[in-house]
Amino acid sequence: MGKKKSGLKSNKKHSKRFQKLGKAPGTIDYLGNKEASATKVTIIEFNEGFLKVHFPGNIEQIVAHKDTPTVSWVNIVGLNDTSFIEKIGKHFGLNPLTLEDIVNTEQRPKIDEYDTYIFGVFKMLYINEADELIREHVAIVLLEHCVMVFQELDDDVFNGIRERIRNQTGRVRNKSADYLFFAFMDAIIDNYFLVIEHINQNMEILDEEVYHDPRPETAHKIQQLKTEVLKIRRWVSPVKELISKLIDSESELISKDTKIFLRDVLDHATEINESLQIYREMSISLMEMYMSNISNKMNEVMKVLTIMASIFIPLTFLAGVYGMNFEFMPELQWRNGYFIILGVMTLIFVAMLLYFKRKDWL
Amino acid sequence: MGKKKSGLKSNKKHSKRFQKLGKAPGTIDYLGNKEASATKVTIIEFNEGFLKVHFPGNIEQIVAHKDTPTVSWVNIVGLNDTSFIEKIGKHFGLNPLTLEDIVNTEQRPKIDEYDTYIFGVFKMLYINEADELIREHVAIVLLEHCVMVFQELDDDVFNGIRERIRNQTGRVRNKSADYLFFAFMDAIIDNYFLVIEHINQNMEILDEEVYHDPRPETAHKIQQLKTEVLKIRRWVSPVKELISKLIDSESELISKDTKIFLRDVLDHATEINESLQIYREMSISLMEMYMSNISNKMNEVMKVLTIMASIFIPLTFLAGVYGMNFEFMPELQWRNGYFIILGVMTLIFVAMLLYFKRKDWL
Amino acid sequence: MGKKKSGLKSNKKHSKRFQKLGKAPGTIDYLGNKEASATKVTIIEFNEGFLKVHFPGNIEQIVAHKDTPTVSWVNIVGLNDTSFIEKIGKHFGLNPLTLEDIVNTEQRPKIDEYDTYIFGVFKMLYINEADELIREHVAIVLLEHCVMVFQELDDDVFNGIRERIRNQTGRVRNKSADYLFFAFMDAIIDNYFLVIEHINQNMEILDEEVYHDPRPETAHKIQQLKTEVLKIRRWVSPVKELISKLIDSESELISKDTKIFLRDVLDHATEINESLQIYREMSISLMEMYMSNISNKMNEVMKVLTIMASIFIPLTFLAGVYGMNFEFMPELQWRNGYFIILGVMTLIFVAMLLYFKRKDWL
Amino acid sequence: MGKKKSGLKSNKKHSKRFQKLGKAPGTIDYLGNKEASATKVTIIEFNEGFLKVHFPGNIEQIVAHKDTPTVSWVNIVGLNDTSFIEKIGKHFGLNPLTLEDIVNTEQRPKIDEYDTYIFGVFKMLYINEADELIREHVAIVLLEHCVMVFQELDDDVFNGIRERIRNQTGRVRNKSADYLFFAFMDAIIDNYFLVIEHINQNMEILDEEVYHDPRPETAHKIQQLKTEVLKIRRWVSPVKELISKLIDSESELISKDTKIFLRDVLDHATEINESLQIYREMSISLMEMYMSNISNKMNEVMKVLTIMASIFIPLTFLAGVYGMNFEFMPELQWRNGYFIILGVMTLIFVAMLLYFKRKDWL
Amino acid sequence: MGKKKSGLKSNKKHSKRFQKLGKAPGTIDYLGNKEASATKVTIIEFNEGFLKVHFPGNIEQIVAHKDTPTVSWVNIVGLNDTSFIEKIGKHFGLNPLTLEDIVNTEQRPKIDEYDTYIFGVFKMLYINEADELIREHVAIVLLEHCVMVFQELDDDVFNGIRERIRNQTGRVRNKSADYLFFAFMDAIIDNYFLVIEHINQNMEILDEEVYHDPRPETAHKIQQLKTEVLKIRRWVSPVKELISKLIDSESELISKDTKIFLRDVLDHATEINESLQIYREMSISLMEMYMSNISNKMNEVMKVLTIMASIFIPLTFLAGVYGMNFEFMPELQWRNGYFIILGVMTLIFVAMLLYFKRKDWL
Repeated sequence: MGKKKSGLKSNKKHSKRFQKLGKAPGTIDYLGNKEASATKVTIIEFNEGFLKVHFPGNIEQIVAHKDTPTVSWVNIVGLNDTSFIEKIGKHFGLNPLTLEDIVNTEQRPKIDEYDTYIFGVFKMLYINEADELIREHVAIVLLEHCVMVFQELDDDVFNGIRERIRNQTGRVRNKSADYLFFAFMDAIIDNYFLVIEHINQNMEILDEEVYHDPRPETAHKIQQLKTEVLKIRRWVSPVKELISKLIDSESELISKDTKIFLRDVLDHATEINESLQIYREMSISLMEMYMSNISNKMNEVMKVLTIMASIFIPLTFLAGVYGMNFEFMPELQWRNGYFIILGVMTLIFVAMLLYFKRKDWL
Repeated sequence: MGKKKSGLKSNKKHSKRFQKLGKAPGTIDYLGNKEASATKVTIIEFNEGFLKVHFPGNIEQIVAHKDTPTVSWVNIVGLNDTSFIEKIGKHFGLNPLTLEDIVNTEQRPKIDEYDTYIFGVFKMLYINEADELIREHVAIVLLEHCVMVFQELDDDVFNGIRERIRNQTGRVRNKSADYLFFAFMDAIIDNYFLVIEHINQNMEILDEEVYHDPRPETAHKIQQLKTEVLKIRRWVSPVKELISKLIDSESELISKDTKIFLRDVLDHATEINESLQIYREMSISLMEMYMSNISNKMNEVMKVLTIMASIFIPLTFLAGVYGMNFEFMPELQWRNGYFIILGVMTLIFVAMLLYFKRKDWL
Repeated sequence: MGKKKSGLKSNKKHSKRFQKLGKAPGTIDYLGNKEASATKVTIIEFNEGFLKVHFPGNIEQIVAHKDTPTVSWVNIVGLNDTSFIEKIGKHFGLNPLTLEDIVNTEQRPKIDEYDTYIFGVFKMLYINEADELIREHVAIVLLEHCVMVFQELDDDVFNGIRERIRNQTGRVRNKSADYLFFAFMDAIIDNYFLVIEHINQNMEILDEEVYHDPRPETAHKIQQLKTEVLKIRRWVSPVKELISKLIDSESELISKDTKIFLRDVLDHATEINESLQIYREMSISLMEMYMSNISNKMNEVMKVLTIMASIFIPLTFLAGVYGMNFEFMPELQWRNGYFIILGVMTLIFVAMLLYFKRKDWL
Repeated sequence: MGKKKSGLKSNKKHSKRFQKLGKAPGTIDYLGNKEASATKVTIIEFNEGFLKVHFPGNIEQIVAHKDTPTVSWVNIVGLNDTSFIEKIGKHFGLNPLTLEDIVNTEQRPKIDEYDTYIFGVFKMLYINEADELIREHVAIVLLEHCVMVFQELDDDVFNGIRERIRNQTGRVRNKSADYLFFAFMDAIIDNYFLVIEHINQNMEILDEEVYHDPRPETAHKIQQLKTEVLKIRRWVSPVKELISKLIDSESELISKDTKIFLRDVLDHATEINESLQIYREMSISLMEMYMSNISNKMNEVMKVLTIMASIFIPLTFLAGVYGMNFEFMPELQWRNGYFIILGVMTLIFVAMLLYFKRKDWL
Repeated sequence: MGKKKSGLKSNKKHSKRFQKLGKAPGTIDYLGNKEASATKVTIIEFNEGFLKVHFPGNIEQIVAHKDTPTVSWVNIVGLNDTSFIEKIGKHFGLNPLTLEDIVNTEQRPKIDEYDTYIFGVFKMLYINEADELIREHVAIVLLEHCVMVFQELDDDVFNGIRERIRNQTGRVRNKSADYLFFAFMDAIIDNYFLVIEHINQNMEILDEEVYHDPRPETAHKIQQLKTEVLKIRRWVSPVKELISKLIDSESELISKDTKIFLRDVLDHATEINESLQIYREMSISLMEMYMSNISNKMNEVMKVLTIMASIFIPLTFLAGVYGMNFEFMPELQWRNGYFIILGVMTLIFVAMLLYFKRKDWL
């Protein structure tokens, strides 16, 4: 079922892409679920000693936070109102290509540096209650005093950050916007470990299944898992390089201090890539195991057939010989002919058993 | 059938190459379909407030557009009149090697920078109505005020751009020639997503077929798809590196502004390469699945044989024993001998069934 | 069993990771065994002519060694008292991220350079008495006059260094702290050779098993070994690059002289990586061997079946013919009919044997 | 047969190498066919308005062409007279290592730049009339006014160049020696396309064979083709890098103008490498196809066996039952017993057929 | 057997490594055969016009050659007297790490540059009379006027150089120490071609065996050869990179002139690496061939069984039918019943044969 799902998804994906064919680059086209909820904006404004949550009623109230010296986290949920996104973009000085990527839910992970802001697209991955892998598009814009987060749905992986801001734990309250930007990346990548864990568990279940009860479906599940690993790698693996480039960047928006934290995230991204690589190799091993078990099973089947046939075919022949109707067959008249032949048959039977025992087939 | 076709194509390809053996480099030899339609030139001249479509009658009318400050899109369809191409080339100051590549429909994708122009060769790929993959050669020359497009056939993937110019949507009317050049690349690469979608659909159909009804032809289709992916990769994958070089280029023909857009195209090219890589791995998985299903089917066949043989061969032997003609076989005279032996046979039959049941073969 | 174990381990690993989800980066969370023994600190202070072992009672006594011109090896065993680690860190000027990595027993190998210290995380690998592979986390901090070693358990691979310090053998007593830092890395990497040896031995045992007595479990063991090699490679292979970067580093903490020794360690790390690569390829070969042996066995089984069936089925048919009850069957009345038919059967039997002999199946 | 041949060749190769064991580097040892024809020198001297072919009688007449301002193509056929080669080398100022490589027919492709000349070794590959792949060693030396070509045999791939010089077509008559040097490389690489075509044709023939009539020999042919591709790649693939280095070279012997042409050759070399890579992957696919067809065939064989056995073994048992000789078997006395049992047998027969039909085995 | 041997070797290897565990880096520990012959020193001193062979009695006589302007080849055979090596090292100013590597017979190939000398470790590979692959450790130190060669055994691959020095052939007598150093590398690498030849011959023998007479042992031999190629690659492949670094080195010990010769050696090393890569791929192909032949053989076995069973099982059934004892079976009373049934059986027999003929199974 995992496969079907991701199959359907990628199907939709390209259908979505079709919408954009022939359109000008920079056209702001939302590719996600059009019936999604209305756009909802929340602003968390804070510094070391101050914290306020705003629910702005109009764009002006949002833009007001652009240049205040406090750090503002502008959280925008719902991307289907593209004209709203466009207006926001204009006020915050975002490039049309950036706006296009914000609403393009199929955009692969990227980090683009502009003169006045840094723009990143990431994939949030998490496992929902139905044990399905959910992928969600998130776009983050880092300005001097403000981080804007654009999401499709209300669910996200940032509740830990919200709590730390509220409770003054961690460093986030004492640091500037670039640290908040880092914290978002950190939260997204930390969630990848859950996905890794999910794959790991499925891998172990399949390993059990291959070893103890391989069925035709098992091969299919292995291949699905392998395909899933390939797809996750595609969404996750660019992140490592992006962060690495960000660390080398000369943009003044990222302080030297924050780069030390980015090195830590880079480390996590590297670990995730390595894990995915290992899972890929393990899925290949699983398939090999599966094939070898199928061969072993066939061997077992063949052995049963061979033993049964090898024992009874000669005996049947012997019975057949004494079932012939020749007039003159001296053995038939012997008093103990029948018992002698039964004895011979028993001997052959035992000899065959011993032979197969010695061959280690029994 | 896809295979046969591409086989024939590559066959023709090398035959075409043969024409060029021993000829001087820079020889302008059209390798495409010689009976193709006559050369047709259209010029779309525009700037922000002005738009005119010309159908020039002679070369002078074409060359006139070289240095006008408006942007001119010189669209040349039909490459078999090599002397015409040569004359055009001379007037626009193109290198003979460039002209050779313009008409060499087998040329792999390339971007060459010259002092006065930038020259690119690309492969347009699209799926026609018969669901076949069509590959078409297109050569694009970027001059200061003018972009020349050389195509074999009337069909192309640039209708979206024509419309945007006509309707003043997008940026193309407000920008200079380099943006138009970028728009062509963008349109070509956007169409690759259709091809990716086509492969994806075939992949899913084959996945179904492998899982539910694998046949000898299925393996052949998988291998054809794999070969198709390899060939598309060959036409498509150089594009990424070419664009990357173009972004790093110091040519004055490409403005810094356009390079931001090129970064976006680079992103798409990267995505396409990643998809092709995934499809390649998926085709390998499909083949593995196919092989494992064949093995499973063989196992099933063997099980039927083994069960039938293991049950009836011993029973037949038993019947054979009491079909022997010995004079003295006490059981034969027993009143219920026949029914006892039938009972024994039933017992053996049931025992065997239980045995195979426990082995999970039934 | 090796597999199960490592499976469980990696399971625990991610559960450990879960603890950290949503927490601030730099949160000092011990992921190891919480019931581990209390923190134990030993300090070995020495220079060329002086050697003293301290068992400090409080933090001040530890910090006192920070700036003495003698070399101090501060050995801290037990990482579950995170508040202690935090205090130590503050006194020695360690970054919170460093402290996080010190207690994060799942951290992959890393070397980070800070202004006043160099920080490394490594995995000690060794084989315990039960022939199991043990992985242990160790964090090493190099300060100007002092090397701090943080370990989970009392066991370590540094006894050789302790002895050399005690007995004044080798160079360690005459050198400064950076040489001690190198000596730790050298000891850790030298122990990897034991692990390599362990894999090598298992590889040879499996090679024997595959060749002489392949069973279904054998395939499983091969795959386990392959997975083990993959996992070891993950813990070991980053080390090479880390040392290489350390050699190129411009930090004043590492003297030019010590770098010559680091080149030697780099050499060992390279050798270990090469060995792991070879073992990976050898495990693939083993699996191929296994599959070919399974096929050969199946061939043998099939040959037995084919020979038995091919010989006796025709003979049984012949016996069946003369078991028919037709009223007029001339051969049945022949005086020697029975013996003639026995002769014919013997002839067929011998002919079949010769046929299979010639086919080299016997 | 292709394999055997290339096997023998590589055999000879190493035997040739043995000649050189223990000899000083720079020893001029001809490794080719010692009975080869005598050395034959032809000089084509030309410039834009002048053309003369010389057949020099002695070395002085050859050396005379070294510094004339016209372009001289010194063509030397036959490499077994090493003392002649040595004298030529001394007069033209060639390094002994260059001379060694000129006569070492086993030398892999290389381009070495010296102060006064550029030296290249290439492999000419072509298909002879017997459809065999022929590899021939050619060494080319570019001096300021003169290009020397050293070949083993009279046959070469340069007739196109000779004609273009004679007929004044192309650019070669108007250009200097470096263009001639480029023209040789261009001709050699153009011929590789023929080899590619040859492999392509064999690939298609094998593809047909695998699909319609796979035999044990087919596998062998596929592997031979794969090995051939590997060997060609070895002779051909270094060329790409060599040309690339030549383009980046700062030698004054290569004009900027010629480098534009070299870029074109580089393009061709890249295309050839890509083709070889694709053929390598296709040969792997072919082998997979072959294996899957063998498995399918086995499946078919097994199905026939299983159907025959499953139908007739139970029927035979039934017949066996009524062939038993019990005194009291009521069915035997029934008037229609025989016809009833025939009916039952027919029923079983039909039921079995339907069963196998439903399983899609018939 | 090759495998067993190399297995044992690598076993010993790690046992040797164990000796070094816990010891200080730079500890001079001979890992080779302790009972090896005593250390033997020979010095060949020469320049263009002078040649003398010394057999020094003490270390002073050796050290005397360090600074004489003639070239001295100090050849030291036997490495078990580590105190002697240590003294030599001190006199010639060698780093303890260098001395450690000189006697560490398990050291992988390396070239280290020090201020006053260049140090290289190589593996001499050759085939002994018993057709076994022998690996021997050699360490070479290049000083200004002197090259020191450290070997385990008397056998080496340098006799060609000795002869060239004695006979004044080649350049070695006219050149300085760096040329001699190059000559050693050249001789070592030239011998690798013999090993390549050895592998090539075994590859061809196995190719024959796989094609004409595949047995279970064949698979084992293929895997052994593959493992041997892997191991040789490990000893040989670092050499290429080492020489490449040496060519780029700025050490004054290597003259520009000698670097031209090193380029030649680099070429040979590249060729050897390419060959090993090809042999690796060929061994994979061989294994595939083997597997396909096993499958073909199984197919043949199955065909025999299927044909025999399919023909005789229905016939036996028919015979069984007329062996039934029903009282009323009209056919049994027919005058020609027996002959009619024999005819029917013959018909079935022939029909079956034709069926299998048409299926191409006969």
